Amino acid sequence: MNYTELYQQIRKKGSFLCVGLDTDINKIPSHLKELPEPLFEFNKAIIDATAQYVIAYKPNAAFYEADGASGWYQLEKTVKYIKENYPEILIILDAKRGDIGNTAGLYARAFFEKMDVDAVTLAPYMGSDSISPFLKYENKWSVVLALTSNASAEEFETLEYNGVPLYETIIRKNISYANENYGDSREKVMFVVGATRPEKLSQIREYCPDNFLLVPGVGAQGGSLEEVAKYGLNSHCGLIVNSSRAIIYASTGEEFAEVAGIKAKEMAEQMRVLLD
Amino acid sequence: MNYTELYQQIRKKGSFLCVGLDTDINKIPSHLKELPEPLFEFNKAIIDATAQYVIAYKPNAAFYEADGASGWYQLEKTVKYIKENYPEILIILDAKRGDIGNTAGLYARAFFEKMDVDAVTLAPYMGSDSISPFLKYENKWSVVLALTSNASAEEFETLEYNGVPLYETIIRKNISYANENYGDSREKVMFVVGATRPEKLSQIREYCPDNFLLVPGVGAQGGSLEEVAKYGLNSHCGLIVNSSRAIIYASTGEEFAEVAGIKAKEMAEQMRVLLD
Repeated sequence: MNYTELYQQIRKKGSFLCVGLDTDINKIPSHLKELPEPLFEFNKAIIDATAQYVIAYKPNAAFYEADGASGWYQLEKTVKYIKENYPEILIILDAKRGDIGNTAGLYARAFFEKMDVDAVTLAPYMGSDSISPFLKYENKWSVVLALTSNASAEEFETLEYNGVPLYETIIRKNISYANENYGDSREKVMFVVGATRPEKLSQIREYCPDNFLLVPGVGAQGGSLEEVAKYGLNSHCGLIVNSSRAIIYASTGEEFAEVAGIKAKEMAEQMRVLLD
Repeated sequence: MNYTELYQQIRKKGSFLCVGLDTDINKIPSHLKELPEPLFEFNKAIIDATAQYVIAYKPNAAFYEADGASGWYQLEKTVKYIKENYPEILIILDAKRGDIGNTAGLYARAFFEKMDVDAVTLAPYMGSDSISPFLKYENKWSVVLALTSNASAEEFETLEYNGVPLYETIIRKNISYANENYGDSREKVMFVVGATRPEKLSQIREYCPDNFLLVPGVGAQGGSLEEVAKYGLNSHCGLIVNSSRAIIYASTGEEFAEVAGIKAKEMAEQMRVLLD
């Protein structure tokens, strides 16, 4: 999926909502736990109930790896289900990978070829070697961690060199690296900026006006959608706001998917207003 | 495995060699590719040929994920094989994970409970939230990226705040955090320091005298074992030196395992001299 297609989907649906498929075997409704593929069955129901309101799904790899090879298989099956039934929806694998070039190339192969997701989250610490193998793919996105939503983000991410915080250095470097080596960075790179720090979004927009930002932390982590939109929207939306727990675990009863659909619809309706 | 047991194994074998199981389906001998579990069969042969010379194995998750659920299964089977046949050998899963606390807890469950490895490599960027869930496990190790062996490590890892490079801030913070919250950091935390920067090891030993350092980059990446030992050894060895490609792909013929055993033996013999 490219930048224009992503923006067209956002306009069409009037939504910039991403639902995080953080599917924890310990949290899904009990009637699903006895099925042979409980993670997949949960995801399938959530996806069917929410697809009309969302422009992206973001499965977090940790939740599937926690169930070993079986979990990995259910992750693959979830990705395939979305691609076959809702091909317009962006699939972001939240994997936060980062390794030396040789190994990063293997991860890129795993996610962009074998699993064939549209985007993957990446850890920036090891530098451009660890991002570059992902940028080589056309119509695929590298979503680089910048300013995350957790409390300890302030231990290292905001340390300042000559008055410039680390996350800003990382955003600037990744934009210039992608522009210089792989064409328009808007088509290749997004950044993760937590909703728990909305005031930072307007500063980030000064040196990162065009790239999409993936914003987690609305909902269970306490971020405000209005604040995020106020500081983060640009002329092509430029935001993908993720909600995981507040949608997928809104109910733990048999009607969990229906309730998730209602919650997703509510957020999408707020987003339509903010987009207009 | 605890600190004392690890050191005892090093003394007994006269080796601080870790073999990296970076098992790439495209690089293994062609006669193995037709088997139903080629990655596992390759690993099993390498392990049996090298176990007497090594104190740790380090499978890199990327190489298994590149083969999807089947690869993940072969990784699990490799770990199980080592545990059953060579229970004294440390298993480090090179996964470089890092996520918010909630999700890091899932990764910890995946690796320390489900897969039951002894150690996992972790990315430091998001701070102590992302390390803490791993530190809660007894006799398990968090191996935190500090100064890596790749060229672009210098983009962010060596940036200085008030004259202190980021990797030093990360090492100091992780030691103090583990000491304050989880007892002796030597029992819980190691750091990754690349062999391509041996001169930095003596500086690191000033503020990190006791923790084990996992040192990749000897061999294919150009690092020198003698230099690493000169600057990095401490009274309890304190080093785990990893070699992957130079051992496991020393031959691509049918005798690959035998040749890998010879290469591992050569390195272990050099290490015995350096230890004495």
